Amino acid sequence: MQNPVPVFTHFLTALSRLLDKAEAHAEAKRLKPEVIPNLRLIADMLPFWRQVTIACDHAKGACARLAGLEVPSFADTETTLADLRERVAKTQAFLSSIPADAFTGAEARTIHIKAGPRELTFTGDHYQNGYAVPNFFFHMTTAYNILRANGVDVGKVDFLGG
Amino acid sequence: MQNPVPVFTHFLTALSRLLDKAEAHAEAKRLKPEVIPNLRLIADMLPFWRQVTIACDHAKGACARLAGLEVPSFADTETTLADLRERVAKTQAFLSSIPADAFTGAEARTIHIKAGPRELTFTGDHYQNGYAVPNFFFHMTTAYNILRANGVDVGKVDFLGG
Repeated sequence: MQNPVPVFTHFLTALSRLLDKAEAHAEAKRLKPEVIPNLRLIADMLPFWRQVTIACDHAKGACARLAGLEVPSFADTETTLADLRERVAKTQAFLSSIPADAFTGAEARTIHIKAGPRELTFTGDHYQNGYAVPNFFFHMTTAYNILRANGVDVGKVDFLGG
Repeated sequence: MQNPVPVFTHFLTALSRLLDKAEAHAEAKRLKPEVIPNLRLIADMLPFWRQVTIACDHAKGACARLAGLEVPSFADTETTLADLRERVAKTQAFLSSIPADAFTGAEARTIHIKAGPRELTFTGDHYQNGYAVPNFFFHMTTAYNILRANGVDVGKVDFLGG
């Protein structure tokens, strides 16, 4: 399998820059540090901070499982944008610790995951392209949309990372 | 390269089911057919109908270019949810017309695209994983978020397509 680390790393860097822009917005509008992390598109969707941590966790889970490694557990304790940037950096540090050759043959690995009450089994290829990547971009896009819908000055090129 | 058609086809089917749910909502609330297609998350983002057609176009463009085919041009004339479902179906029909072996070696193909004022050149692999797939999920997620933020009864499992 193509090493999945570079694409996740690229988009995590883009996510980190979205956090920078959110922080600049919070400063300009004199918002308390917890305001943007708690924004939601609608009451029964997860808040911004959870969209960010879940995106990070799909990148971490995908790279660990496809490389045959234990998935490291990061506690969900972030309350500020600075905390979230740290979570992204910690995720990127884990990804960069995985040797590229760990993904050789990963497309054929059997991957089991628990997603809430559901237990899912995939081939490595199906897990990556049909589950981890769609989920990663779902949560990254929702984080972006929360900022965008609340007037933070972000655009599509920020999402794409240049 | 792994044939990209099955994953795009799966998520286009999920998108079509989101359109079914949007239509059921429009009927229940007695909305005119053009109301949901014109919803936006915020005034300076594209409306729902464009999010759907752009998602379709990334799937169409990716599969055509990676297979070395001319990208078929579909006019953006949709005004109703039924029109959008037709656009998804037309996109899926094109994807299913491409023989699986057309993608052999596609990771190394050179892909040129114009994105607004920008001209971009990629390898096939980078185009698919770093551009077409992220864009496809960006627009599909934004379409989903527009429905979700407007009270349509859709959930994450609908996005994932089961």
